[in-house]
Amino acid sequence: MITVLAGGVGAARFLSGLVQVVPPEQITAVVNVGDDVILHGLHISPDLDTVTYTLAGAIDGERGWGLGGETWQALDMVRRYGGVGWFNLGDRDLGTHMYRTHRLREGATLSTVTREIARAWDLAVDIVPVTDDRVETRVTVIEPDTTTEIGFQQYFVQLRHSVPVKSVRFVGADVARPAPGVVDAIMSADVLVIAPSNPIVSIGPVLAIPGVRAAVESSRAHCVAVSPIVAGAALKGPADRMMTELGHESSVVGVARLYRDLARTLLIDEADSANAAAVRDAGMVPVVCDTIMAEPARAARLAQRVLDAAR
Amino acid sequence: MITVLAGGVGAARFLSGLVQVVPPEQITAVVNVGDDVILHGLHISPDLDTVTYTLAGAIDGERGWGLGGETWQALDMVRRYGGVGWFNLGDRDLGTHMYRTHRLREGATLSTVTREIARAWDLAVDIVPVTDDRVETRVTVIEPDTTTEIGFQQYFVQLRHSVPVKSVRFVGADVARPAPGVVDAIMSADVLVIAPSNPIVSIGPVLAIPGVRAAVESSRAHCVAVSPIVAGAALKGPADRMMTELGHESSVVGVARLYRDLARTLLIDEADSANAAAVRDAGMVPVVCDTIMAEPARAARLAQRVLDAAR
Repeated sequence: MITVLAGGVGAARFLSGLVQVVPPEQITAVVNVGDDVILHGLHISPDLDTVTYTLAGAIDGERGWGLGGETWQALDMVRRYGGVGWFNLGDRDLGTHMYRTHRLREGATLSTVTREIARAWDLAVDIVPVTDDRVETRVTVIEPDTTTEIGFQQYFVQLRHSVPVKSVRFVGADVARPAPGVVDAIMSADVLVIAPSNPIVSIGPVLAIPGVRAAVESSRAHCVAVSPIVAGAALKGPADRMMTELGHESSVVGVARLYRDLARTLLIDEADSANAAAVRDAGMVPVVCDTIMAEPARAARLAQRVLDAAR
Repeated sequence: MITVLAGGVGAARFLSGLVQVVPPEQITAVVNVGDDVILHGLHISPDLDTVTYTLAGAIDGERGWGLGGETWQALDMVRRYGGVGWFNLGDRDLGTHMYRTHRLREGATLSTVTREIARAWDLAVDIVPVTDDRVETRVTVIEPDTTTEIGFQQYFVQLRHSVPVKSVRFVGADVARPAPGVVDAIMSADVLVIAPSNPIVSIGPVLAIPGVRAAVESSRAHCVAVSPIVAGAALKGPADRMMTELGHESSVVGVARLYRDLARTLLIDEADSANAAAVRDAGMVPVVCDTIMAEPARAARLAQRVLDAAR
């Protein structure tokens, strides 16, 4: 059994490689929900949906998020009214949020609804939110004269993560409980993977749920992390700048310092081969390989390297 | 100033005639909200939207409800998940519900949001929900062996109003307050109109809001009703069967008995000319005219007849 701690796009690509090299029913994805947002009354879970849509082969390949074959009629109408138009929601995607919201209002847990959605896409990977409780990633950003705390999606989408970050917190995490099966999936996994996701705002909220970090630490011997930082930069998103702004080194060494108590091995890209020794000095076993998952075959090869490193 | 008590389709057609014969800024529509429903977390106001979309010329002419140029991607997705698929929600229409839901969650009142939506459609008619409070029309239906109370939309849409009705109630109406301006719009109107809407479930919830019926009764002298029943039948919907099932006569006479304390004059269709005397015996002044609003010009003529009857 393989358990993957997952954020959005990077984790989804990694998982789409993993299902090519191991039977999907042996895989559990424990997914960040700190990015979740309620907009227009709808409960939106971007990372869960990115993982689901990607594994279903339904993601829009061009954009990298949302569903293919999408239309934008509802959002056009919201904008006509002067409503909240900065968060892109396609019409097809809305159906997912409508279903999720309806089921949550009926009293279903987020993990139950997530499995129902995955089943409708014929997925055998077990996709689980790290918690069924509400956790909200909030970001304090530095503006010219002041600092303001805003929601993650406001930072990420509305401000296009173009403002400096002073601090990040996960509201509700301290009293959240891991979703059923999450701790067990981490403890009993033969291989535990920290996917190439943003360490601060994707993996961070997962580890912030009480009991999760301890479970990962106890699995350290067979835990492998994949660096989301390649040659000092994030392939996508603000992980590099955010690491620097929060006092970490934006490099595979910085990643190793964040993960050394959690994972034994760190997969770093060939572009970072010169840093392998520094990763080792930081307390992790470096494995140098191609980590750029530009095509399915490369994602599969990366997944295989992770399995090899764990064994 | 002209104030119209309104349900959905019939009232919307009447209003689209009225704006052809008087300046729209002199018209207030006080609209039923008992049909409102929260589905998928979205606040849906079918009668308010039917009135707004019709006056905006945006209604789908073929279907008679919802917006023209509509697509159904979100609902298709909800159905893929096995969600609530019986209530048709087009993608464009969803934008209205998303905007309304967002604003209500921000603390705006329904009447404020309704005016914002009307303004976005460039409407000068003042469209007002009869109340900003939650009122829910619930219908007790007779099933083979038992009776069940269900929401109005379940009765109307899911069961296609094909089951007998034992009773109707308006949950929350007793503690609801008229929306700001509603009582004044009724009391100070030069002409008050009860639109050709279902007397039980469209006009009924409007009159059930404390203070509204009394205001209408005090305006009786210049209040004109248009019968929604023509030759014993409703042009659309279950008004005829519902009246019979609830012990009223499904005829212009039955309508006159319901409205005689509220309006002085009842416009009845030429098909009902033989019932004019019976309407007078029931306590209302009958005016026989063409009440079928199949084209805009006929709706305008009907509106003019109402104005003439009131003066």
